[in-house]
Amino acid sequence: MKFVVDQQVKDIEMPENLKLNTFLQEFHSDCPHPECSFGFYGFAFGQSPFPVPKLIQDALVKNACKGAYAPISGIPELRDAISKYNKHYFGMDVSTERIHVGPGTKELIFNLLEVLHGTVILPTPAWLGYLPQIRYLKKNYHMLPTRSNKKISPTSLKKLALRLHDRQKILILNNPNNPTGLLYNKLELEEISDVCREQNITVISDEIYAQTTYDFSKFVSMGKIYPEGTFVTNGLSKSHAAGGYRLGYVIFPQDTADLSTQFKKILATEYTAVSTPIQHAAVAGFEISKEMEEYFEVTRSIHQIMGEYTYDGLSSIKGVTATKPDATFYLLADFNYYAADLEKSKILTSQKLSESLIIHPYHTAIVGGDSLVLERTDFSARIAYVDYDGSKVYQNYLDNKPKSNSEKTAFVEHNAPKVVAGIEMIKTFFDNIQTTFVRDLQSQKNSMMTPN
Amino acid sequence: MKFVVDQQVKDIEMPENLKLNTFLQEFHSDCPHPECSFGFYGFAFGQSPFPVPKLIQDALVKNACKGAYAPISGIPELRDAISKYNKHYFGMDVSTERIHVGPGTKELIFNLLEVLHGTVILPTPAWLGYLPQIRYLKKNYHMLPTRSNKKISPTSLKKLALRLHDRQKILILNNPNNPTGLLYNKLELEEISDVCREQNITVISDEIYAQTTYDFSKFVSMGKIYPEGTFVTNGLSKSHAAGGYRLGYVIFPQDTADLSTQFKKILATEYTAVSTPIQHAAVAGFEISKEMEEYFEVTRSIHQIMGEYTYDGLSSIKGVTATKPDATFYLLADFNYYAADLEKSKILTSQKLSESLIIHPYHTAIVGGDSLVLERTDFSARIAYVDYDGSKVYQNYLDNKPKSNSEKTAFVEHNAPKVVAGIEMIKTFFDNIQTTFVRDLQSQKNSMMTPN
Repeated sequence: MKFVVDQQVKDIEMPENLKLNTFLQEFHSDCPHPECSFGFYGFAFGQSPFPVPKLIQDALVKNACKGAYAPISGIPELRDAISKYNKHYFGMDVSTERIHVGPGTKELIFNLLEVLHGTVILPTPAWLGYLPQIRYLKKNYHMLPTRSNKKISPTSLKKLALRLHDRQKILILNNPNNPTGLLYNKLELEEISDVCREQNITVISDEIYAQTTYDFSKFVSMGKIYPEGTFVTNGLSKSHAAGGYRLGYVIFPQDTADLSTQFKKILATEYTAVSTPIQHAAVAGFEISKEMEEYFEVTRSIHQIMGEYTYDGLSSIKGVTATKPDATFYLLADFNYYAADLEKSKILTSQKLSESLIIHPYHTAIVGGDSLVLERTDFSARIAYVDYDGSKVYQNYLDNKPKSNSEKTAFVEHNAPKVVAGIEMIKTFFDNIQTTFVRDLQSQKNSMMTPN
Repeated sequence: MKFVVDQQVKDIEMPENLKLNTFLQEFHSDCPHPECSFGFYGFAFGQSPFPVPKLIQDALVKNACKGAYAPISGIPELRDAISKYNKHYFGMDVSTERIHVGPGTKELIFNLLEVLHGTVILPTPAWLGYLPQIRYLKKNYHMLPTRSNKKISPTSLKKLALRLHDRQKILILNNPNNPTGLLYNKLELEEISDVCREQNITVISDEIYAQTTYDFSKFVSMGKIYPEGTFVTNGLSKSHAAGGYRLGYVIFPQDTADLSTQFKKILATEYTAVSTPIQHAAVAGFEISKEMEEYFEVTRSIHQIMGEYTYDGLSSIKGVTATKPDATFYLLADFNYYAADLEKSKILTSQKLSESLIIHPYHTAIVGGDSLVLERTDFSARIAYVDYDGSKVYQNYLDNKPKSNSEKTAFVEHNAPKVVAGIEMIKTFFDNIQTTFVRDLQSQKNSMMTPN
C-alpha cells in the first residue's frame, strides 16, 4: 500500500543533534576503515555525563507504584517544588498556577509555539531543536544574527521588529546559550527587555542551562526582568543530568490565566500528562536540599574546568577563536581562518567539515555551523566537552578538588583523556589541511552521513 | 501584556474525559450541598483500578539510574519485547523496525494524524480523545454512525468512502471498543478490510484494550487481517493499569520504511523519546512471563464479573438497554426511553443529563453521549465499572474465585459496593424523573461544570 505523507512533515528535517547521534551510534561500532576499531572523540552530543542525582533516583524508586494519570499541568507537589526552587535559586515569586509541567522543555516550547500566534525571531547561532519546530508549525520566522560578541544586539532586534507587521512577535532567547556557552548579564537583559516592551515582543526564555552557570551569582532570569512578557522554560535535562527522564516545566508570564486554559487544552489533546513516577522523582530534584546544592556546585565546577581547558586548547591552535563559556558544557569555535585551505580540499561547507573530521584518522565528532542555523559556509562549530566518565570524575573531584591552574590542567588530563586527545586531533586536522589535500579522506565517506 | 492565541487552539475543546476529571476532583472534595460530604459514584473516568504489576514496578526501580536520552523510536530491548509480545498474544510477526514507542497511544495517534495526509473517518460513538486531535490538526473528517449493533457497517463505510475524494482516507477503528466494550470478530474485521482494500482506506486500529478481552481467544488484531494498511496502537495504559506511566507503541504496516523515517522526524521534533526508565520498566510488562499472564487473566476476569453485573443491573431498569461488553471496563447505556420525561425536567441534552446525575442527591458521574461524539440529544452514556479498590479486589479474587452466578453477584456486592449503589442511584434518578420534575436540582448547578 502506498501512503500519502503530509507535506509539512516532508518539508522538515530530522533535528541535527538526533541525526548526528544516530549516525555516531552506528559509526561507534563500526569504523569503515579496515584497520581501525576506534570510535570517536565526542564533541557533538549535548548530554551531561554525570549520574542522575541519588535523591532523584531514590524518589523514582519510591514512586514506581504510581500508575494513575497525573493532572494535566503536573502534580501539585511538583508545581509547588518548582515554585520554591525558582524562589530560592532565581529569586522569582511564581505562583503554582503559572507553572505547567511537560515531557521535556522541547515539547513545551513546541506547545508554546502552537498556542502563541505570531512571527518568531530566532537569534543565531541557535540550538538545533528550534528550527524544525518552527518550520513544522509553519510559523513565520526571521533569523536575528548575533553580533561579533555572539549576543543579541538590542538595536538589531528593534530594527527587525519594526519591519514585522504581525500583531505578536516571539523572541526565542536561550540563556545561558547553546551553542556559545555565554551568559547574558542583567544589563544586557534589561536592554533587550526595553525593546521587547516597546515593540510588544513576547519572549520564550529557554533557561535549561541556568543552573550550570559557573559563577552562579551572575545568572539572572529573563522572567525577573520582563515578568509580564516572558515564558521561562527549564527542567531536569541538563543541570540534573536526567535528559532521559523527559521532564521540563514552563513558567507563564504574570496574569495569563486565560492563556493557561488554552495551553492546557493542547497538553490534554496531545499527551494527557507527564509520567507520574517521573513527576514524583522530579520533586526531589527541585526541592531545596544540601545534596542537590552540592551536586550543582560540583557539576558546575567540573564543567568550568573542562570548559576552560577546551577554550584554552582550541584558542592555542593558530587562527582559531572560540567563545569563552560562562555556563553550559559547550563553546562555539571559529575555524574560518582556514577557509581557503579547506576550499583546496573541496571542503566548502560546515557540513563537509564535520564529515571530514569524523572520518578516519580524525574520528572527531563536532556539530557544524549549518546545524546551528549559521550560513552553510560558516566554518564555526559547537564543541561539547563532556566526553568522559561522569561518575568517576565526580568522585575524583570530591576526593581532591583542583585549585590552581596547573592542578586543573592535571585534573583534565587525568580525568578526560579523550577531551585532551580530541583537541589535539582537531589541531592535527588543521595542520594537515594547510599542508596536504584531504581528498583521500573524502572518498571514504560513501553514504555514511545518511541517517536511517 | 495581552497575548494573541492561535485560532486553531481556540477552536478546540478540552477533551471531555480530562475536563470531567478536573471537575470531579474538585467536586469530590466539596459537594456544594450544605449537608453533604459524599463524593460520587465514579462511572466516568476510564482508568484501570488495579496496581501496576509488581514486575513492571521492580523493573522501574532497577532502572531509575538511566538518565541518558533513549533512541527516538525506543530502546532496542523494548521494541524486541513488543515484537515478541505481539507474536505470543496476537499471532503477529512484526519486525522491530515497524515498532515505534511513544509517550502514550494518545500522542502516537496524534503523530499518525500529523504524518498521514487524508480525510479521517470516525465511527461513532467514539472515544473522547480522537475528535479534539482531528479538529486541532484541521483534518477533514466525517462521522460514520454505527448501526443498531453499535458496530461499523461495511456497507455504510463503503458508501461514505465513495463520497470522499481525498487520495487517502483514514479509518479510526477502536477494537475492543471504548465506549461500548464490544469486540469485532474475525468475520467483521474481514468485511471491513475488504472495503478498506477496495477503497484504499488506511486504518488506525486502536487496540489498547486488546488484552482485556474477557474470552481472550476471541480477540483478533486488524493488523493480522489487513497488515498492509493497518497501524496498530497499544500500550501499558489499560491492560497493564499503568496509564500514568505514559507509554504506548504503534506497529506500522508492512513495507513502510520511508514512512517510518518521516514519522521519526515528528517524534524527534516534538519530544525526542519516551522517558528511559519508563521504557526499561515497560520491557517487563511486554516480556512473556507467568506473572504477567496471571495478571492479565485475573484482571480480565474481574472486569468481566463487574461488567456483567453492571450490564444486568442497568438492563433491569425499565426501558434501559446497554451493550453487553466483551472487553474493556465500559458499556454504553441507552436512556432514550426517558427522553420525554427528561424533557419535562428541562433536560434536553446528554450534557444536561450528566450534570443532573452528578449533583446532590444523585452524585453519579457518567460520560454523556455528546462527549462520545453522539448527537447532543442522544441520551446514551458510557458507564465505566471500575469504582473499587483494585488492590484489595485483586487479592480477594485470588483468595476465593467466584464460580457460579450467585458467587459472582456476591463478589461484586462485597468488593464493589459503590458500583452496586451507583446503579441503584441511576435507577432512583429515572424513577424520580418519571414522577417529579427535577427543577430544584437544576438550580444547584451554578457554574459547577466550568473546568478551570
